[in-house]
Amino acid sequence: RDVGRVIVTCPDRPGIVAAISGLLFRHGANITELQQYSTDPFGGTFFLRIEFHREDLADGLPEIEAALAGLAEGRSMRWRVTTPAVRRRVAIFVSKADHALRELLWRTQTGELEMDVRMVVSNHQDLRDTVAEWAVPFHHVPVGPESRDDAERRALALLTGQVDLVVLARYMQILTPRFLGAFPDRIINIHHSFLPAFVGADPYSAAAQRGVKLIGATAHYVTAELDAGPIIEQDIHRVDHRHSVADLRRIGRHVERAVLARAVGWHLQDRVIVHGNKTIVFA
Amino acid sequence: RDVGRVIVTCPDRPGIVAAISGLLFRHGANITELQQYSTDPFGGTFFLRIEFHREDLADGLPEIEAALAGLAEGRSMRWRVTTPAVRRRVAIFVSKADHALRELLWRTQTGELEMDVRMVVSNHQDLRDTVAEWAVPFHHVPVGPESRDDAERRALALLTGQVDLVVLARYMQILTPRFLGAFPDRIINIHHSFLPAFVGADPYSAAAQRGVKLIGATAHYVTAELDAGPIIEQDIHRVDHRHSVADLRRIGRHVERAVLARAVGWHLQDRVIVHGNKTIVFA
Amino acid sequence: RDVGRVIVTCPDRPGIVAAISGLLFRHGANITELQQYSTDPFGGTFFLRIEFHREDLADGLPEIEAALAGLAEGRSMRWRVTTPAVRRRVAIFVSKADHALRELLWRTQTGELEMDVRMVVSNHQDLRDTVAEWAVPFHHVPVGPESRDDAERRALALLTGQVDLVVLARYMQILTPRFLGAFPDRIINIHHSFLPAFVGADPYSAAAQRGVKLIGATAHYVTAELDAGPIIEQDIHRVDHRHSVADLRRIGRHVERAVLARAVGWHLQDRVIVHGNKTIVFA
Amino acid sequence: RDVGRVIVTCPDRPGIVAAISGLLFRHGANITELQQYSTDPFGGTFFLRIEFHREDLADGLPEIEAALAGLAEGRSMRWRVTTPAVRRRVAIFVSKADHALRELLWRTQTGELEMDVRMVVSNHQDLRDTVAEWAVPFHHVPVGPESRDDAERRALALLTGQVDLVVLARYMQILTPRFLGAFPDRIINIHHSFLPAFVGADPYSAAAQRGVKLIGATAHYVTAELDAGPIIEQDIHRVDHRHSVADLRRIGRHVERAVLARAVGWHLQDRVIVHGNKTIVFA
Repeated sequence: RDVGRVIVTCPDRPGIVAAISGLLFRHGANITELQQYSTDPFGGTFFLRIEFHREDLADGLPEIEAALAGLAEGRSMRWRVTTPAVRRRVAIFVSKADHALRELLWRTQTGELEMDVRMVVSNHQDLRDTVAEWAVPFHHVPVGPESRDDAERRALALLTGQVDLVVLARYMQILTPRFLGAFPDRIINIHHSFLPAFVGADPYSAAAQRGVKLIGATAHYVTAELDAGPIIEQDIHRVDHRHSVADLRRIGRHVERAVLARAVGWHLQDRVIVHGNKTIVFA
Repeated sequence: RDVGRVIVTCPDRPGIVAAISGLLFRHGANITELQQYSTDPFGGTFFLRIEFHREDLADGLPEIEAALAGLAEGRSMRWRVTTPAVRRRVAIFVSKADHALRELLWRTQTGELEMDVRMVVSNHQDLRDTVAEWAVPFHHVPVGPESRDDAERRALALLTGQVDLVVLARYMQILTPRFLGAFPDRIINIHHSFLPAFVGADPYSAAAQRGVKLIGATAHYVTAELDAGPIIEQDIHRVDHRHSVADLRRIGRHVERAVLARAVGWHLQDRVIVHGNKTIVFA
Repeated sequence: RDVGRVIVTCPDRPGIVAAISGLLFRHGANITELQQYSTDPFGGTFFLRIEFHREDLADGLPEIEAALAGLAEGRSMRWRVTTPAVRRRVAIFVSKADHALRELLWRTQTGELEMDVRMVVSNHQDLRDTVAEWAVPFHHVPVGPESRDDAERRALALLTGQVDLVVLARYMQILTPRFLGAFPDRIINIHHSFLPAFVGADPYSAAAQRGVKLIGATAHYVTAELDAGPIIEQDIHRVDHRHSVADLRRIGRHVERAVLARAVGWHLQDRVIVHGNKTIVFA
Repeated sequence: RDVGRVIVTCPDRPGIVAAISGLLFRHGANITELQQYSTDPFGGTFFLRIEFHREDLADGLPEIEAALAGLAEGRSMRWRVTTPAVRRRVAIFVSKADHALRELLWRTQTGELEMDVRMVVSNHQDLRDTVAEWAVPFHHVPVGPESRDDAERRALALLTGQVDLVVLARYMQILTPRFLGAFPDRIINIHHSFLPAFVGADPYSAAAQRGVKLIGATAHYVTAELDAGPIIEQDIHRVDHRHSVADLRRIGRHVERAVLARAVGWHLQDRVIVHGNKTIVFA
């Protein structure tokens, strides 16, 4: 209730925290969480995330936004104000694997993920019944070698104006720049390796081949270059010589779903800021 | 160079961040790190740690302190300003085990721990040569069943006015309230279990007896109640049925030294605030 | 296909591995996994787990068992032969929390847990629909202050002859010795703390109160003494001062379900041997 | 005392464990630890490590070896018998960083690493005094762009016939095939990344550039291809956007020394078997 967030990015210089915290105080807000980071206190880029409580937030928000707009003017300051009261609308893309999807749906139901899953989109029919259990619309958009462009157009039509975030929960198709352009820094993928190791297809086979002693998973924003977008979260699990590729896949599922869920959770709470090809995560 | 820190504890109410960040800005300081925590935004206790850069810090410090004193007046605000330029003076207490001591001395030498080890105090002679390698004074203060009071008096005489922090790096003696009273919230102990499991002597034997699958270590401030002081840091290591008590001791050493070193490091950077019997750690 | 397991416990003395591996060889079995442990090579207790492949296992099993019985005679040797082809029949007990239950059902469906969930028993109705999705019978056995004996009798009647293993997946009732006696070393509970810390009710509140920096979960066999049975598996998750009791509960769920699932999986594969109040886990 | 180890590699087929455990039994040995692995029970490669106790081992060893030689004949079986009583002679190569070296020397002193450090070889003088504290010979073998071949010849002359294992404890020079050929599967390197990510020079800069959320270290046997040899052990540590390259180096040191020490310890206990470009680690 009555919780707001301010996210700010601007060139670093003295007085920014004072200015914004002063502004919030004058508008009746009590800061409950504040995190900041500067790439370089001398001429770097400054990032700020503030969570605050303000009674009758809805009434006060327009004033706060107006004041921030005034402050931002002439300072190259990018800012936004959000509130968990407005839940993000999310589309989850899957292929055949259910683990990441189930985790997201379950954490949404328990309230751990504050989002509104508007639809699940899949190039296969396999998970239709699973999705039905959670009362979420399921759209089958098959993708063939000939129909890729067409499929993407269909998917985009489903999403446009309907969702704020796209989560690729083991969706095994590559998206075109056109699709990516429609959701800049708003498409999260889970890659089943510890990037940048094992970019591309079938990383568990590659991991088994190389004889690694840990396998990992990486949640990242999708960019045009395959598996090279800004990393949000990573984690690993210990394996040994006894584990077959099938074992790695099985173990890896648990890492994948946890890493993806954490990344999505941070995104929903505006804790992730993309800066170049990296992320600042105010976890 | 020119880095300062402000640590503040006070009743929570709107405007504190604005007031202090404004004060720092007016005195030429640029905030480089800010962390805050409130036990309860409505009437709880508020904790703040700010790290800032201010050119010619030594010149500006008196003004900043005066301004903070003014601000604090009438607000039940406890505050202090510190600077890494003034290194803490530390005494390390040991018995016979060398692992925690070596870790602290090595991390001090590499600059990872910003402290000035003034002396090592031990109830045994075993580590005299080890300490000599690091050019740190070694004081042998034997403790017998009869001589305990006397020994503590001797230790206190060595410390008084000479050190700001006491680290018990596997010192196997219990300290009296008189000793503890001389260094409130400034004696850090490493206990070789995951507290509150296995309070007291020989926790590894107790752990083996219970058949736990993880062993741990806990760094905490020492209070009058044994192993019950505010916890600063804990960590664990996986073990299994094959591990004897001797194995647990051997494995545990690695956990102990890492946990103690992290706790001491955070203390030295004023990242640990004691609140009742708990700590806020702005890591 | 055609996989068997031999589990042996006996007084340690030279030649046991030779005798049993020789016996298996003579009966056409190829050892694919072998683990052993001795509490003391001189007069201790010896534990052995062998997994083997034997073509047409069903045909060969009676002979192998007869040969083992012969070998065991006069050696105080306890042994059993099992095969994953005979799936364990399992009852899952729950109260209101769904996370551990869902994990077990999901891992059963994916084949990661090789068991046959015969029923879910609960003292509440809350999870009836969840269980229905997985096509598993749900039995509501309410437990009131007056009806406890009666409820246990009803539960026992459901289980007797029907299940080989009982899993308490956050079942918030204490079982009587009569119930425990019906399933010796075959009731697995998940306790939501790092035992032996925080025995008893509401461990997350106790953890928050003590200010620990890690929370944990413990899977153990249930014995008459509360939370004191042989530990099978434990794990932890890092927390800090910002986490409320509700946060600990939320975070803890993920640890609990993983720890319980691992423990159940090892039990099903006969990897856990109880010895006194400890377990040997051939993971 | 009186502990021996048998390490066997051969084509998998039924009866190997029976044959070797029978052989050991007939020669008075009691198996205290046994681990085996097969790449494929049908026609794969079989690996076996047995640790045994045999009274008056020195007397019995020739017979055991003769019997094994007989068994091996005509079975393509490679085998060796070792005993911890014969400590491996080790040369540690370093450049300027002291952390991995100190860890190895300290763990040797405490008995955790059962080895005999015969010499430290360095292309710099920086660590001469550190080594002197441990009473280990220090050899300065400078390596220049012109003198590389010469330097290697000097190093080889120091090692030949004197050491059984070479540990590169952050030795920042590449070795030639001639050098590697003199110590096949007996040169262990610690690479300061989670291989195969960040092969080559300055992996921490590369990690910072890529924005990874975990940094790692990898201990591996050195082969002709840079950073591509069989991996023995890996581990990671969590980092975030606040960590500079210098921070990663500092944090990474702790991971590097732990990973290297574990790998060396397993090697010394004959727990690591190289198979193609992978390792079987009977940890």
